[in-house]
Amino acid sequence: MSILVVGSVAFDTVETPFGRAEKVLGGSASFFSVAAPFFVPVNLVGVVGDDFGDKEMQAFAGRPIDTSGLERMQGKTFHWQGKYSYDLNARDTICTDLNVFEFFKPKIPQSYRQSEFVFLGNIDPVLQLDVLEQVQKPKVVACDTMNFWIKGKPDELRRTLSKVDVLLLNDAELRELSGEWNVVKAARVVQKMGPRTLIVKKGEHGVLMFGEDSSFAAPAYPLEAVFDPTGAGDTFGGGFLGYLAAAESVSDDALRRAVIMGSTLASFCVEAFSLDRLLRLTRKEIDDRYRLFKRLTHFEDI
Amino acid sequence: MSILVVGSVAFDTVETPFGRAEKVLGGSASFFSVAAPFFVPVNLVGVVGDDFGDKEMQAFAGRPIDTSGLERMQGKTFHWQGKYSYDLNARDTICTDLNVFEFFKPKIPQSYRQSEFVFLGNIDPVLQLDVLEQVQKPKVVACDTMNFWIKGKPDELRRTLSKVDVLLLNDAELRELSGEWNVVKAARVVQKMGPRTLIVKKGEHGVLMFGEDSSFAAPAYPLEAVFDPTGAGDTFGGGFLGYLAAAESVSDDALRRAVIMGSTLASFCVEAFSLDRLLRLTRKEIDDRYRLFKRLTHFEDI
Repeated sequence: MSILVVGSVAFDTVETPFGRAEKVLGGSASFFSVAAPFFVPVNLVGVVGDDFGDKEMQAFAGRPIDTSGLERMQGKTFHWQGKYSYDLNARDTICTDLNVFEFFKPKIPQSYRQSEFVFLGNIDPVLQLDVLEQVQKPKVVACDTMNFWIKGKPDELRRTLSKVDVLLLNDAELRELSGEWNVVKAARVVQKMGPRTLIVKKGEHGVLMFGEDSSFAAPAYPLEAVFDPTGAGDTFGGGFLGYLAAAESVSDDALRRAVIMGSTLASFCVEAFSLDRLLRLTRKEIDDRYRLFKRLTHFEDI
Repeated sequence: MSILVVGSVAFDTVETPFGRAEKVLGGSASFFSVAAPFFVPVNLVGVVGDDFGDKEMQAFAGRPIDTSGLERMQGKTFHWQGKYSYDLNARDTICTDLNVFEFFKPKIPQSYRQSEFVFLGNIDPVLQLDVLEQVQKPKVVACDTMNFWIKGKPDELRRTLSKVDVLLLNDAELRELSGEWNVVKAARVVQKMGPRTLIVKKGEHGVLMFGEDSSFAAPAYPLEAVFDPTGAGDTFGGGFLGYLAAAESVSDDALRRAVIMGSTLASFCVEAFSLDRLLRLTRKEIDDRYRLFKRLTHFEDI
């Protein structure tokens, strides 16, 4: 069982009230690719420029991450610069240099095409659909998106969503996509577009999952030191889909455990800049924090 | 086992995107007093004007609510007017007419003085302390406050907090009171002021409880129709403290169940204007929704 992930591989320049990191490894596919292999192997598809060197590749080395689908193009790697204030749930984008990412046309290597789990990172919905046309009958397609596509390519996004099983987005995006303010009603509207499972990411307020017949609410783990939230959503995606793929199940119970696993991985991601914390994370630390989530949310029946 | 509640009894004029209610019964002590008697009797202390008639008193009738401590003064009852937009977590106060409430000096009837559980609604911390000086050794003192007092009477509030067991406040108030942005650190700062248990109310994002050695996170119940959030916090207080008083326990397990019971009562409160939904609520409905909270948050160990 392996996962195909398609998304951005980038350099991030990030400023938070706690420090600054200059051109460190980032991008949706990077965070996902480092999180998911705690559970299953990952097949990575993305594009980088000729400034992406051995040092950066090191993050993917020694882990079950196949990087043969990571294309190299002449030019510079995608660069994003952002700034967070104390309210880490909100951020300002200072600049977005697409560079080689502007010309990204995902080419799925032959050896990846039978991946049974697919994660479509937040890229143009036309490219997301194009990826799905290159793979053979995936068991689960999970997809991330953002307001830029919801507003800019609504019809294209609808076509992609009709082929998606699990949609991950934040509460503002859910409201925009559905045209409904109330989150429960909004979820029903979006589920009719295709995804039978909807995961609403609320940052420090946790996650709401809407399934076919059941809802699930998970808090974020209350941390004393949140250092940099960049990548938390994609790290959640990696933990979530990685766990599901390893469980080989999409039952309601497995989806719930996967949400907690995603939240667990994300809670580590935010403890340091870039992938730093994830790269020195152990499976034991993951399992211990999963159990802390259990304790955090447990209450007895009346 | 009974609870003493001291707070406002008011007329509210409320506008939400879903409708408008004119001079309906409101106030912290009113919501609390109707919520808590699902579990234990309540002794109410507040003040109303001569415009507070039989119709309003009807809300407290036929329930174990002792209103002998509800003082009548010449003049008008406290009136609050507010407006909510679709984001029901934020509201604008349009006017606050204190009226007789400006002269409120809580007098605790002799028959109330042995109440073992005390709820200090959001009033001047000087009056809150004055209440505590009139009661005999309560088992649990719970207290609500707001930014107005945090900013305006910080020293007085500190004196009150030194005698409080459970402090309820929202996340913005917690940050202001502690001077810390991070919620976990902020909680530790405030716990040092006195309250060994801190309940952070986050509206639609639920509740975080910080105890001496453990934390607990509860979501808000995801409702399809939130009509009017006014009073949800005090209704939470009534369900929370009512449940604790009935359980005659302040163990970590009892506190967790009490948080869910408070969240359950609050989830009904917001379904209609004023106390309308609470007044026709049954114990069976409460227990059924408590069980839905269990289902909403449950996940298996790994």
